[in-house]
Amino acid sequence: MNSSLGPVVGVDLGGTSVKAALVSPELELLARDAAPTDISGQDRLLMEIEQLVRRVAAGHGVAAVGFGLPSQIDQRRGVVADSINVPFMDVAFAAEMGRRLGLDVKIDNDANVAALAEARIGAGKGRDNVIMLTLGTGVGGGIVLGGRLYHGSTGYGGELGHMVIDENGPPCQGHCPNHGCLESLASAAGVRLAATQVAADRPDGTLAKAMDGGGRVEVRVVIDGALAGDRDCIDALAIVGRHLGVGIASYVNIFNPDVVVVGGGIMAAGELVLRVAREEAGRRALRPPWREVEVVAAELGNDAGVLGAAALVL
Amino acid sequence: MNSSLGPVVGVDLGGTSVKAALVSPELELLARDAAPTDISGQDRLLMEIEQLVRRVAAGHGVAAVGFGLPSQIDQRRGVVADSINVPFMDVAFAAEMGRRLGLDVKIDNDANVAALAEARIGAGKGRDNVIMLTLGTGVGGGIVLGGRLYHGSTGYGGELGHMVIDENGPPCQGHCPNHGCLESLASAAGVRLAATQVAADRPDGTLAKAMDGGGRVEVRVVIDGALAGDRDCIDALAIVGRHLGVGIASYVNIFNPDVVVVGGGIMAAGELVLRVAREEAGRRALRPPWREVEVVAAELGNDAGVLGAAALVL
Repeated sequence: MNSSLGPVVGVDLGGTSVKAALVSPELELLARDAAPTDISGQDRLLMEIEQLVRRVAAGHGVAAVGFGLPSQIDQRRGVVADSINVPFMDVAFAAEMGRRLGLDVKIDNDANVAALAEARIGAGKGRDNVIMLTLGTGVGGGIVLGGRLYHGSTGYGGELGHMVIDENGPPCQGHCPNHGCLESLASAAGVRLAATQVAADRPDGTLAKAMDGGGRVEVRVVIDGALAGDRDCIDALAIVGRHLGVGIASYVNIFNPDVVVVGGGIMAAGELVLRVAREEAGRRALRPPWREVEVVAAELGNDAGVLGAAALVL
Repeated sequence: MNSSLGPVVGVDLGGTSVKAALVSPELELLARDAAPTDISGQDRLLMEIEQLVRRVAAGHGVAAVGFGLPSQIDQRRGVVADSINVPFMDVAFAAEMGRRLGLDVKIDNDANVAALAEARIGAGKGRDNVIMLTLGTGVGGGIVLGGRLYHGSTGYGGELGHMVIDENGPPCQGHCPNHGCLESLASAAGVRLAATQVAADRPDGTLAKAMDGGGRVEVRVVIDGALAGDRDCIDALAIVGRHLGVGIASYVNIFNPDVVVVGGGIMAAGELVLRVAREEAGRRALRPPWREVEVVAAELGNDAGVLGAAALVL
């Protein structure tokens, strides 16, 4: 924890851009900056991040920086074990960045920091136990218990997208050897799979036409179509919503949380996914914990990353 | 917590018997007693339990009693919301029993107290984060994080048997409206289902003969057959082991625990179930948390209930 009363910096590293923000002790966003992510190498990316933090922090008496990284992190040693879309693997990131900046540094997984932000000042504000799922390229997860991030024994906990919901389901993606994970059915890949199913069922429908007999449809096309009222697109998102609801029911039974927060790019579809998920979870969850939980959309959008990263050191 | 240094009483209530033990502050079992559970009514059962505790506690300066109950418990109010196999529903058990006995009383779910006992002095001894699954009539669960039982927001957390592993799977049982839960595939019902599958595949095999064209086979028969080397019975338990492994992989990804402890009556089959489960989980779990976890059999057997109940007040 940062004992000073001054602002801190929160950094949200993604495969496309690295964002940094100056954040007040009350988690207000005071200023922001960003740069395209230099993925040409580890040293170049470390230098880019260092320079970005220096620009944002300059003249503000910043004592600490928090980082949300697209990585699996060994919290015992502050080491990035492996990453998705950025060239960090087996890097003692916290020590290295602390040395470069001369500041206190804390690091965490990007989905974890988003969950922390939503729990502190977003859709989970004021609640003790918050489960967050972020539906995007993958399905990220974060667990906040008693107001604090849960990391597990070594920092790898909270991989909520990698709970199996269909043991005979499709292969998962990235570093995951599993199949039938929530991630394989409720991520962007899940939306494309659902669109393929609807297209197969309705060869004269809009999705079948958009896919032109075997092509791949963009997730954005499905979401925009659904928001414009297209039945095929709405039904494809409903398939995703039902898978999500299966996962939410399990998390309600496991954690008896106060709130399940759902964010990420696919939540551009909002209630078209979330209402179906809520209904499916309501049919499946045990009654006592279901009566106590709310299932809501994330509130902080893209700012959850920098705010949650800042919250790591506040 | 009990601040005295004297012994406490732990009570393990089941549908068949109610067991009580005098337990030292070091969780040694000093004396025990039991009675057949009087399920004829709530008041009669409360009186039976009260008398059993008085017998065990007499003359030992006991200041506190812990209870493991086959129930969903609202920990905010110390109230048993609902139970399986015993007539407790909407009972302010902790207050009522405290009044009758004049002792400090704590209550928890039976699977939770078993997990606490295994974490303190059993297969999870000395480890911070322990996930326990008990395979019996149902699949119970307990979560010990940082050495303490995790209850969730209202006390209903840790229902680890009610995580879906096959969203299109068979209906669950008891109060659970779900289908494809771990409980539906890795409990006694799961063993019978697996035996039916093996019998259907091999109409001349031992299980088909034992089921005599549609009858139901007892779980004990399958386990004993497998332990005696019968191929059909071994294969039926392997099906259960694979389902269990799917669940364990998910819990490893979610919790990044130090250890997963598996107990309950079906674990009479030991490694015939657990080795298969370990292999399946090893194929499915994310590498970093899988490298850190052990999957082991419970050590305390039937004593886990009374010892864990005692641990609630120690």
